[in-house]
Amino acid sequence: MDVATRIEHALVSALTVTTTSEAPPRLAEAMRYAVFPRGARIRPRLCLAVALACGDDQPELSNAAAAAIELLHCASLIHDDLPCFDDAPLRRGKPSVHAAFGEALAVLAGDALIVHAFATLARAGGAVPSRLAALVTTVAQAVGMPSGIVAGQGWEAEEDVELARYHRAKTGALFVGAAISGAVAAGHDPTPWRTLGERLGEAYQVADDIRDAAGTTAELGKPVGRDVVLGRRSAASELGLRGAIARLDELVAEAIAAIPPCPGAAALRGLIALQAKRFLPEGLARVAA
Amino acid sequence: MDVATRIEHALVSALTVTTTSEAPPRLAEAMRYAVFPRGARIRPRLCLAVALACGDDQPELSNAAAAAIELLHCASLIHDDLPCFDDAPLRRGKPSVHAAFGEALAVLAGDALIVHAFATLARAGGAVPSRLAALVTTVAQAVGMPSGIVAGQGWEAEEDVELARYHRAKTGALFVGAAISGAVAAGHDPTPWRTLGERLGEAYQVADDIRDAAGTTAELGKPVGRDVVLGRRSAASELGLRGAIARLDELVAEAIAAIPPCPGAAALRGLIALQAKRFLPEGLARVAA
Repeated sequence: MDVATRIEHALVSALTVTTTSEAPPRLAEAMRYAVFPRGARIRPRLCLAVALACGDDQPELSNAAAAAIELLHCASLIHDDLPCFDDAPLRRGKPSVHAAFGEALAVLAGDALIVHAFATLARAGGAVPSRLAALVTTVAQAVGMPSGIVAGQGWEAEEDVELARYHRAKTGALFVGAAISGAVAAGHDPTPWRTLGERLGEAYQVADDIRDAAGTTAELGKPVGRDVVLGRRSAASELGLRGAIARLDELVAEAIAAIPPCPGAAALRGLIALQAKRFLPEGLARVAA
Repeated sequence: MDVATRIEHALVSALTVTTTSEAPPRLAEAMRYAVFPRGARIRPRLCLAVALACGDDQPELSNAAAAAIELLHCASLIHDDLPCFDDAPLRRGKPSVHAAFGEALAVLAGDALIVHAFATLARAGGAVPSRLAALVTTVAQAVGMPSGIVAGQGWEAEEDVELARYHRAKTGALFVGAAISGAVAAGHDPTPWRTLGERLGEAYQVADDIRDAAGTTAELGKPVGRDVVLGRRSAASELGLRGAIARLDELVAEAIAAIPPCPGAAALRGLIALQAKRFLPEGLARVAA
């Protein structure tokens, strides 16, 4: 089974709870709406890519880790889009969850996806109990306080924010969590995998800044120019468009160089070089060439 | 160490993440504000009472379960109080979290408390890996879909709701989770403990209806009469005040009768009879006598 199929199967399986007649139907629908049809699935792909590079001896556990990471990503998008944050009407080319289902169900759908991320880890972890605690801890660190994505969003409520710390938490943490949880699921020491996640997270953030500054709504599936509207500082505004694109290439090269020795290192290097090309829409990639 | 102290220590320990300089300070403060000073801590008391009745051979794991249950309860209160749900200005006698910190930080504080509930289980579960998967699953079922507290709140967005199912999810599920997680943390079969949690959850709901119908804001720490304002059906409106109080007594008796054979059964029966008296303010308890 290819990686994309594994991820979609794992997500469908994680959301089985939404298909029983016991569940409140609109909340169940809002949860599925937030997760399907798929986005780029960049984080769960990274998780499975690392697990495979580490031998992937417990594929059900890796699948659960990948699904948990994506559920948490989807939950964060729902809550970030709420009126009290970005007030975003669109996401992935369709109305955001609160625009489609109302604020109350958007809050609950996010909450429920967070819960089911951990439930998904526990379900697969019963068969590999020695890895479960580290896996739950890894995933929780990527999302919670003091430096996960929720903390990152929390920095937006502060007057005095260091830009690098904000981005590390808001975007980088879940990439780090994806890389490390892939290693943990496969029974490997997570420590050497942190840098890969950090560099890819930063690369993705720079690419997002570039797309926001130069992309089109059709390519992005959400309104562009939000960073300027919201007064956020970004790599594009600090380095200029060409400078930001050069920085992106540098970060991807550093990510590839950071892959530790493992059975599938060569394949992983090739995969990351390939995937990173998709960070930017084609027109922008040509600007860089 | 007595049970109340164990619970407060476990909660302080679970929120250590909010005290580092790495954390965004206002979000950290909002999380602590939602958890301290303590409410009645009824659910974590139930969790530890069951763990003790089962021998409590892993007290760190029981403490973690109790803390996780209370963190999830606090998270649900924050989100339930939001303008898109109850729009409640007060909670536990002080401004609700969104009234004090704004909506954005209230959403994030709830999210972070959910995450840290699971992180707390994982931290203690590393030493008892054979119990962790069941513990995470138990807690997740109490909160998520299809029948946890988030699902209960989700039923409020539906036209057609069966009152008993709504209350079972909205209030009962976390009592069931508290009772069962206490048994799981102590290495006992959780199945026979479900009825105790169900009956206590229902008793608490009936007591809440009675307090809402007859209590005073000072006794309750939140606005009374909300059920009528919000058009919710309640036991007090269906059975009348005396009828509801009789039903409460019946449920507590059923809860006590449902305690399965275990080393501390007699002590637990006494404790529950005592605690249940505190479900109602003194004036209302006299109406019942």
